[in-house]
Amino acid sequence: MALTDSGRVEAFSDGVLAIAITLLVLDLRVPARDDLHGASLASALSHQWPAYAAYLVSFLTIGIMWVNHHAMFTQVRQVDRPVLFANLALLLAVSFLPFPTHLLAEYLTADGRDAHTAAAVYSATMLAVGLAFSVLWLAITRTAGLLHAHLDRAAGRAALRRFGVGSVAYAGTVALSFVNAYATLAVHGALALYYCFDQLATSGRAPVPEPGAE
Amino acid sequence: MALTDSGRVEAFSDGVLAIAITLLVLDLRVPARDDLHGASLASALSHQWPAYAAYLVSFLTIGIMWVNHHAMFTQVRQVDRPVLFANLALLLAVSFLPFPTHLLAEYLTADGRDAHTAAAVYSATMLAVGLAFSVLWLAITRTAGLLHAHLDRAAGRAALRRFGVGSVAYAGTVALSFVNAYATLAVHGALALYYCFDQLATSGRAPVPEPGAE
Amino acid sequence: MALTDSGRVEAFSDGVLAIAITLLVLDLRVPARDDLHGASLASALSHQWPAYAAYLVSFLTIGIMWVNHHAMFTQVRQVDRPVLFANLALLLAVSFLPFPTHLLAEYLTADGRDAHTAAAVYSATMLAVGLAFSVLWLAITRTAGLLHAHLDRAAGRAALRRFGVGSVAYAGTVALSFVNAYATLAVHGALALYYCFDQLATSGRAPVPEPGAE
Amino acid sequence: MALTDSGRVEAFSDGVLAIAITLLVLDLRVPARDDLHGASLASALSHQWPAYAAYLVSFLTIGIMWVNHHAMFTQVRQVDRPVLFANLALLLAVSFLPFPTHLLAEYLTADGRDAHTAAAVYSATMLAVGLAFSVLWLAITRTAGLLHAHLDRAAGRAALRRFGVGSVAYAGTVALSFVNAYATLAVHGALALYYCFDQLATSGRAPVPEPGAE
Repeated sequence: MALTDSGRVEAFSDGVLAIAITLLVLDLRVPARDDLHGASLASALSHQWPAYAAYLVSFLTIGIMWVNHHAMFTQVRQVDRPVLFANLALLLAVSFLPFPTHLLAEYLTADGRDAHTAAAVYSATMLAVGLAFSVLWLAITRTAGLLHAHLDRAAGRAALRRFGVGSVAYAGTVALSFVNAYATLAVHGALALYYCFDQLATSGRAPVPEPGAE
Repeated sequence: MALTDSGRVEAFSDGVLAIAITLLVLDLRVPARDDLHGASLASALSHQWPAYAAYLVSFLTIGIMWVNHHAMFTQVRQVDRPVLFANLALLLAVSFLPFPTHLLAEYLTADGRDAHTAAAVYSATMLAVGLAFSVLWLAITRTAGLLHAHLDRAAGRAALRRFGVGSVAYAGTVALSFVNAYATLAVHGALALYYCFDQLATSGRAPVPEPGAE
Repeated sequence: MALTDSGRVEAFSDGVLAIAITLLVLDLRVPARDDLHGASLASALSHQWPAYAAYLVSFLTIGIMWVNHHAMFTQVRQVDRPVLFANLALLLAVSFLPFPTHLLAEYLTADGRDAHTAAAVYSATMLAVGLAFSVLWLAITRTAGLLHAHLDRAAGRAALRRFGVGSVAYAGTVALSFVNAYATLAVHGALALYYCFDQLATSGRAPVPEPGAE
Repeated sequence: MALTDSGRVEAFSDGVLAIAITLLVLDLRVPARDDLHGASLASALSHQWPAYAAYLVSFLTIGIMWVNHHAMFTQVRQVDRPVLFANLALLLAVSFLPFPTHLLAEYLTADGRDAHTAAAVYSATMLAVGLAFSVLWLAITRTAGLLHAHLDRAAGRAALRRFGVGSVAYAGTVALSFVNAYATLAVHGALALYYCFDQLATSGRAPVPEPGAE
């Protein structure tokens, strides 16, 4: 067997995440020539800004999910079936993301009611992603035998706390959706950027496996 | 060669399964603003519930296929051409699944006749997946040289029996399709959930390769 | 570096082939309810038989390409840039295949002239795939240093001869396209099946790497 | 852990690049039978030549990106978070490419103003890809600990210089877009071909890892 158990889970997850992140571009619509009605292409493209904003936020979010998933599995030696299914639940939430992204791109500038609905569906999906991440981490850390020896327990609890804070923040965006859809998208973008830099700051502490230690 | 024979089959299969599972989301349609005709987006989305149900059942089914495929290939040391083509037949059935999923989502609530047709196509695809799985297992286990030494023969026969029972159940859903399409989808969902928990229950008995044994 | 040179080429090629084979399903169209005009869904689906036939032939062809590519790279120890670009040309031809597949599905039953055009585009793409395969094999075998020691030279020439015969056959289907589009698709199907069984017959002679030899 | 850090980054990047390169084919539209209005399919297909040209140039460009990415990561022993996010920025630019490719295919033959816009968006995306590549290379080479011992420093600086020249050339195509969209696409095609042969010429000097050195 060329890949360990955890290696093949990583490979499958990488596949799903890579596909979900790349499929996002299919929701960016090229305006048909006949639909311009004399307007310039530049103007038609600029009216699609909600689509670009939603694309960017979702791309960043899935990218960060991948970085986190990657970091999480550097701790994992092998996986059991609860971990497999927790991972599947995470992949379900992430691979669903292109749908609410498209929804938000279409309805962000609509009348209040529908914009709120679209933002709420988007935020609820993000919340599901966050919760699935926490469940996966719990499934991984509940059994010591699944982990490499050098797991830092305090770091494990810190990670769970950070996932928990993230889930609370995502729950907040669900509520915010019914107030203002633009602000909701902006907060999702800010959260994604925050997670980028938060992880950059802690990168020095992550245990890096020695070459040849695999 | 970085991957053993069986490693590359797993990688290709992971790719196809990961893509098929992620492409399912493309069949969830965002209602166009002009098609709402004054209805709310929330109401339009809730009318699409058959699409979400079919999406969820198909996602779970492909996910379980992947878990089973993964478990099956932990037993495999190397593959020959019959295994390659049996595996290709399985991938054909699984990668076809987005089509009947879309079909069922579109016609579940249609007049009886067309709903029955859509459910039957969906069930027949599931039956094909189940049969292909059995054929793959037979192709793998027919030659001892393809297997790791530690194969549990009784477990091998038990797996084949379980695949056989699954195929009979899927054949039953084909018949059920002509009675009630809703019930058919519900049974497929129940079968997927059953397989999740059935495998969870037996996970303790699966041989887990030692770290470093690859 | 976790993957050898040839390992990463295989992984990238597997990815492209897996995606191309799975994208084929997107060209199978679910008839819209409003387009049935009183006809049954079963009848509408049965009228799409050229789409299923083209789907099946293209799926088999890409699958066989993958099996051949896999067999070819078991001979390869490392790759240089000419091999990389020959491989890229092969991937170009294969990943283009969903387009002529869709074209043939749409126009197979059209008036003679357009059916001939669609069949010719399909056949020309297959010819390009066959030629790219021969070029890749030449690029790999032109330098002994790229190969594992145990390459069977006679088998290498036999493989090239088989690719050459395949290319001549594909060139024949381009000519046949202008006579009869149905016959052209049937010949492509027969060629795909022939390659399946041809390879099955010779599988016993292929050098199989020892476990642990990676 | 089956893959080293850098191995999994390569696998994820391969996935995104493989998907982006394969999704390009979805933008090649099969003319609907009803849209021919008596014209032949051959004539309708030949009118789509900008789509084929844009497809080919984008395919080649992503293919070269993959070859470069592959060559770059043969130097890398492990990655840290800045490299992960620089890589993510590159993947963002590359996976966005199907959108401007489709845009250019649709508007290349449009009235000047809109053709210029489409060419400028296409060129700006290429510029972003080039810049992201330079940033990734800087992130990788800024810390000696990320690299294999055998990095040739002069080759490192030469690579950066080549990426820099590429970025200047891409910036030039942005300007050229407002003069002539056809010429812009031709220059992109010429650049892609140049990079193919440039790399072929230098391939003899690249350090090739010994088998078993992984």
